[in-house]
Amino acid sequence: MADKIKSDIHLALIHYPVYNKKGETVTSSVTTLDVHDISRVARTFAVSSFYVVTPLKTQRQLVERLIEHWLAGYGAEYNPTRKEALLATRVTNNLKDTVSDLIRRCGQKPMTVATGAKRFPKSIEFRCLREKIRRGKPILLLFGTGWGLEKSILNEADYVLDPIDGIGQYNHLPVRAAIAIILDRLLARVKK
Amino acid sequence: MADKIKSDIHLALIHYPVYNKKGETVTSSVTTLDVHDISRVARTFAVSSFYVVTPLKTQRQLVERLIEHWLAGYGAEYNPTRKEALLATRVTNNLKDTVSDLIRRCGQKPMTVATGAKRFPKSIEFRCLREKIRRGKPILLLFGTGWGLEKSILNEADYVLDPIDGIGQYNHLPVRAAIAIILDRLLARVKK
Repeated sequence: MADKIKSDIHLALIHYPVYNKKGETVTSSVTTLDVHDISRVARTFAVSSFYVVTPLKTQRQLVERLIEHWLAGYGAEYNPTRKEALLATRVTNNLKDTVSDLIRRCGQKPMTVATGAKRFPKSIEFRCLREKIRRGKPILLLFGTGWGLEKSILNEADYVLDPIDGIGQYNHLPVRAAIAIILDRLLARVKK
Repeated sequence: MADKIKSDIHLALIHYPVYNKKGETVTSSVTTLDVHDISRVARTFAVSSFYVVTPLKTQRQLVERLIEHWLAGYGAEYNPTRKEALLATRVTNNLKDTVSDLIRRCGQKPMTVATGAKRFPKSIEFRCLREKIRRGKPILLLFGTGWGLEKSILNEADYVLDPIDGIGQYNHLPVRAAIAIILDRLLARVKK
């Protein structure tokens, strides 16, 4: 029953354009573990869709094969909880195509919210984004792999979410962990 | 400066006794990605120590070599944020040895708090555990790999923490994601 409470939240895990360790703009490789972990976290918080975004055709095909294996192949029988997690996982070429796909599916343009380890003038607080979620507008959260989203993505996004403040100055969370914490802060709290 | 706010929280990632998919008690394999991810999350929330607990000598040696590589080997130069994350990571044989090590280091027995996807009669709320943390008693949080901690660990622990309620009934978070969410709920909130 509680499964029916589905928020209009979507995730995009972006592999280009992101920074590498040296601050250069690169295309990062898709990590299959990211796909599984983030799909499970997304399913836990009833996220409507999780897009794996990469311009590399071979990597998109890899993720499509992975999804196919767990949804319809031997994997579906072997591990049903993994199948269930991957039901909302999709693959796209770039951010523009992701937004187009969402417009087609939801009938309206989602608000884009970039995430990262730094605070910007247009950063918004978690509390503020939770309020927007409550109002029901579709929201696409953007997460960067590698050393984070390129500035162009942050500039073009409607909002940038406040970074996760831990205790102290260390801010090198794996993207998998950041997504788990952000969804918990935005969505689990709404329920309580 | 903020780095000085260090809570007396410790983590144990337990590889035996845990359940497998069939509900049998097994020793799960150490995943090196768990070690890196959880070390980064632990560092973010200024956790005092993170124990990788396994009875398998070869696996303990693997983790010790991994830590050595990133702390003192080429890795320390290649990726300093990984080095910093691993400073609090330790390896032990079993839960008893972990508690003994903590008594030796902290001068008192920690309160043990098991975690899992189910609620038990002795489960405590996050709010309640946050309050205990504020009072400053050392706390050892126990996390199970595989399909979760064996019942004996839950029975012997001083407390069991409430499960992470997402939205709906799906409760198959990766342990990496569960640790990120639990530390955020217990520790980041204290600061705010």
